[in-house]
Amino acid sequence: MIASPALQKLIDALRCLPGVGPKSAQRMTLHLLERDREGARVLSEALAEAVARIGHCRLCRNFTESDTCEICNDSRRERNLICVVETPADVLAVEQSASFRGLYFVLMGHLSPIDGIGPEDIGLETFRQRVIDEGIEEVILATNPTVEGEATAYYLTEMLHPIGVKVSRIAHGVPLGGELEYVDGSTLAHALAGRRPVE
Amino acid sequence: MIASPALQKLIDALRCLPGVGPKSAQRMTLHLLERDREGARVLSEALAEAVARIGHCRLCRNFTESDTCEICNDSRRERNLICVVETPADVLAVEQSASFRGLYFVLMGHLSPIDGIGPEDIGLETFRQRVIDEGIEEVILATNPTVEGEATAYYLTEMLHPIGVKVSRIAHGVPLGGELEYVDGSTLAHALAGRRPVE
Ligand SMILES: [Zn+2]
Ligand SMILES: [Zn+2]
Repeated sequence: MIASPALQKLIDALRCLPGVGPKSAQRMTLHLLERDREGARVLSEALAEAVARIGHCRLCRNFTESDTCEICNDSRRERNLICVVETPADVLAVEQSASFRGLYFVLMGHLSPIDGIGPEDIGLETFRQRVIDEGIEEVILATNPTVEGEATAYYLTEMLHPIGVKVSRIAHGVPLGGELEYVDGSTLAHALAGRRPVE
Repeated sequence: MIASPALQKLIDALRCLPGVGPKSAQRMTLHLLERDREGARVLSEALAEAVARIGHCRLCRNFTESDTCEICNDSRRERNLICVVETPADVLAVEQSASFRGLYFVLMGHLSPIDGIGPEDIGLETFRQRVIDEGIEEVILATNPTVEGEATAYYLTEMLHPIGVKVSRIAHGVPLGGELEYVDGSTLAHALAGRRPVE
């Protein structure tokens, strides 16, 4: 392709975005340069700022620009109830269902021996200690209903059992094999209400 | 949505990309922060660099980082044959067909009275002067076979007729209503070979 180096570099760089192939990266590049240079400038800044500022909450591991996140800092939330999810997108999905007023713990992934992701990589020891130290009453397991999500929920159940904390799993109103992030609010509300204790 | 300001700013900024709605902007943001911060950094730089460096070729109006572009500077190209296209993407499409060895003129759009885009906005006066000054032998009109593209080709034909230059239109092997940018190389090669003089 005949393209100036800066043009080619932008086309290549856009491919880091999920779902963007060579053809749509080219289309995006030409669109930005022809019709939205201001948008490109703003996007460049937003990317640099996000990478520089956004880290993880010391308590729940969710994204935050501070030491602890807005949810962990919110004194109106129930502090003895923790919902465990895989990703920040899952926190957003549960928040949008407006059916949960406790705190979160974000694994930033799930157990996956094949990929070398073990309990320490998803913060489970820290979490166990937090449950003990803070005298948490109930842990709701809201990992995805996939093989890895179920395995992670099973591991958490076994880990938390000796502590004596109540452990529950959200009901399978969430479609099997589906991803929590794409489930609508009312289905999630139903799944949370229908949660059952894990034996 | 509960999101830190930098996170929300990035989600909003990604929507300047064509085809990116709120849900996929959110998915892209979380993907970059969770799994590809290096990609985000590179993309930020590539955007800033492209906006700062890429301008238009003084001769053909295509994107370039210099005063004139690589194609206009290439002494092996036939200099008395100019192909007129609407966008830089169309130049790439024609180049990929490897069936044209002349120069280009990129309108960076098409005539569109409804949107207030007239002949001067797409550089037609400059182009007319260039055709005269350089003694161009043939102008190939490769605007899109859409209403606006056809109207632009018609306007160009009328404008160039008094000069006495040969004017041709690429053959309609290009699917009607389609966009040049998405046509495969062999169809374009066929359309170029089958071009006919415009009366
Ligand atoms: Zn937090
Ligand atoms: Zn040029």
